[in-house]
Amino acid sequence: MQGGKQPISTYQLAGSCHSNEAIREVPRVSSVSFDLTSLLAPDLPPPAAKWAGFPKYNFVGGHNDPEHLPLEGLLAAANTVLKREGRTLATYGLESGALGYRPLRAFLARKLKAHAGIACEPDEILITSGSLQAIDLVNALFLARGDTVLIEQATYGGSLSRLARLGVNVVGVPLDGEGMRMDALASALAELQRRGIRPKYIYTIPTVQNPTGTIMGEPRRAELLELARRHGVPIFEDECYSDLVWKGARPPALYAMAKSEGVIHIGSFSKSVSPALRVGYIVAGWDILSRILPLKTDAGSGALEQMVLGEFCPAHFDAHVPKLRRGLRAKLETLMEALAEQFGTAAEFDDPPGGIYLWVKLPDSVDALRLAQVALTEGIAVNPGPEWSTDKAYGRSRLRLCFAHPSHETIRHGVAALAEVCSREFGVPARIANVRRG
Amino acid sequence: MQGGKQPISTYQLAGSCHSNEAIREVPRVSSVSFDLTSLLAPDLPPPAAKWAGFPKYNFVGGHNDPEHLPLEGLLAAANTVLKREGRTLATYGLESGALGYRPLRAFLARKLKAHAGIACEPDEILITSGSLQAIDLVNALFLARGDTVLIEQATYGGSLSRLARLGVNVVGVPLDGEGMRMDALASALAELQRRGIRPKYIYTIPTVQNPTGTIMGEPRRAELLELARRHGVPIFEDECYSDLVWKGARPPALYAMAKSEGVIHIGSFSKSVSPALRVGYIVAGWDILSRILPLKTDAGSGALEQMVLGEFCPAHFDAHVPKLRRGLRAKLETLMEALAEQFGTAAEFDDPPGGIYLWVKLPDSVDALRLAQVALTEGIAVNPGPEWSTDKAYGRSRLRLCFAHPSHETIRHGVAALAEVCSREFGVPARIANVRRG
Repeated sequence: MQGGKQPISTYQLAGSCHSNEAIREVPRVSSVSFDLTSLLAPDLPPPAAKWAGFPKYNFVGGHNDPEHLPLEGLLAAANTVLKREGRTLATYGLESGALGYRPLRAFLARKLKAHAGIACEPDEILITSGSLQAIDLVNALFLARGDTVLIEQATYGGSLSRLARLGVNVVGVPLDGEGMRMDALASALAELQRRGIRPKYIYTIPTVQNPTGTIMGEPRRAELLELARRHGVPIFEDECYSDLVWKGARPPALYAMAKSEGVIHIGSFSKSVSPALRVGYIVAGWDILSRILPLKTDAGSGALEQMVLGEFCPAHFDAHVPKLRRGLRAKLETLMEALAEQFGTAAEFDDPPGGIYLWVKLPDSVDALRLAQVALTEGIAVNPGPEWSTDKAYGRSRLRLCFAHPSHETIRHGVAALAEVCSREFGVPARIANVRRG
Repeated sequence: MQGGKQPISTYQLAGSCHSNEAIREVPRVSSVSFDLTSLLAPDLPPPAAKWAGFPKYNFVGGHNDPEHLPLEGLLAAANTVLKREGRTLATYGLESGALGYRPLRAFLARKLKAHAGIACEPDEILITSGSLQAIDLVNALFLARGDTVLIEQATYGGSLSRLARLGVNVVGVPLDGEGMRMDALASALAELQRRGIRPKYIYTIPTVQNPTGTIMGEPRRAELLELARRHGVPIFEDECYSDLVWKGARPPALYAMAKSEGVIHIGSFSKSVSPALRVGYIVAGWDILSRILPLKTDAGSGALEQMVLGEFCPAHFDAHVPKLRRGLRAKLETLMEALAEQFGTAAEFDDPPGGIYLWVKLPDSVDALRLAQVALTEGIAVNPGPEWSTDKAYGRSRLRLCFAHPSHETIRHGVAALAEVCSREFGVPARIANVRRG
């Protein structure tokens, strides 16, 4: 039609005209019958199983302690922020642009300065949908099929599965009680150089390493930065757990020590406030963020969650986290006690300086993959070491046990049940403590 | 260490021991100096520009009407649901599994039945982070580089840019006043068949098509399903806007008419409640959802937003949406009046039966890409037709104008300002209405 005001008539649907009235009957069209499978993209992961609820003894996943969720604070923050600026929910990106809710970025800039020594502006922070999206974005920035990256030999399973799906070669670097070993890293870098391969990044979880729980000290951080500089390889620093150090100041972030040059830093509120909120972040210079931003094609991360955190954190984060840490530390002690009681010397582990997981070595005769599988059928979920390791032999008899979510009682009963399965399947522990199992 | 309780000592950081105390100085490590550019993945999009706030006259983006955001309802829902079950925020996926918050899926199942004729169970619905993630997941399920898809000739720009980035061949199917033309679709399918190409899907926005605003009637829907069945091509049905039909019952969804066979259906709360919340969904049989679910590696979509919607919608959605529609309809009338007043017969458009955008044809002499570029420098943002079309010649002189967010006054002034730019750059409209602009 030509410009000008038109009568409102336009397309009229058959039938009477209550607004969006219910449709009473739908005619059946002869069904599309063809083999959909032949149309699917190649190399899809296997189908998911239907969800059957959480296992009774749930030692997997980054779930947190429900008792230490700061519910009243979040509720108060939701009320305050929605009353003040809730109408901005009518716009994508609120009124803060694509980097995310500005008050939350401003809080993060202050927090990163105070806790990690990072000097950055709010515009060097991109809010992401959890740190998982941060990992996806950094991967999308650097990686193409056939590329090579360096990564800690035991590391976050989700990072490993992503790299596998991207067709990227992973070089695992062994760890010791202080994280990634610099002699091993130097060898790996030299070997790659000899072969003419320039790795795309060195991925590290330096503060409360997942799963080993180690913290890389400051001198080793300096060594790592120097090695990376010499080989021209960026560092991808994942600091998801760095708020959960039991005692003492943590070392400065690699990003802080490098003054942002050649380092991309990511973090999350999942472990410090709530995993379900799905709020993480990337810290990088604008030269990097401006390349990452066009890859974030989701029209922004969830605004309500950013607003609630942006309101809650400035007033309450620093008081909340120590309470959470004390609660987690107590659960870790329960877990270590239960393991000692149930497994005796068959379970070896270091007492981690923070975090939500314990990395346990069982005798070599234990096949952790099979143990995890059998245990799951009895309602006990654990992460088998091979899924958390680049070196399947190293991971073979190891387990990751997350302790934040289950209650003290569930931890005790779950470890007893796990010991029973392990003893039955592998003969260890040889003697089980004389307690009734739940 | 061996199992057993350990003293809490472990890794001790230098310095005194206030919990996570501030770091006082960070040693500078010689900076990593290398050309990062050479490490980036190939074919990255161009860098983002820094955000400089919304333009003064913002006719782009799916922003909604702030006045019709149901803020009080959302606030009340947040209070109720957080008080009742807020502690589930300590777990990923709440206690609903990977498909998303179950009360929200239960509401959707009822709504889809009542409004779109879809009979589905909550377990055939996957909650996504906006319908953009739904599009990404369906693309990941089907598409590999070099594949072919059929798509409406004028369509959502974000779908086009995604397909371009995936290296997928796009065959545009012309539209008329009732959406995708079936004669053109039949020809395109036959031609592809002749060339031995089986398309991966037919993407359609049948109810309030973006950008043309048309609604595909029920007989044409049946034709579309029949054509798709005959050629063994799945239909990808995007129903983002279907809640925003001004009057009358909308036709049943393609998914409903096909009883789910060969159709994947997506939708969103972005246009009906709030775009910033980032909550969309996929409806598909379990055979499809079980393949999509492993591709959703984000540990769940934002829980707070799902919980708030899951609490708000059952009681308030059906009362809220008609109010929103009336507000949108009034803004559309303001926009059409302003266009008639400012552009006269130079702006041609149909009065759309719903939605948040108007698709405007300007005289052939107008290069919409250049118009959009110049207009932006004067604070007027519009979507140029070529970015919303598979056929750049068809889109050349067309614009998409979104009217939900700007106030009536801003719409009037913005259209006047646009007419002034257009007149100066292209000589049309030849005479501008005698009103002061700005």
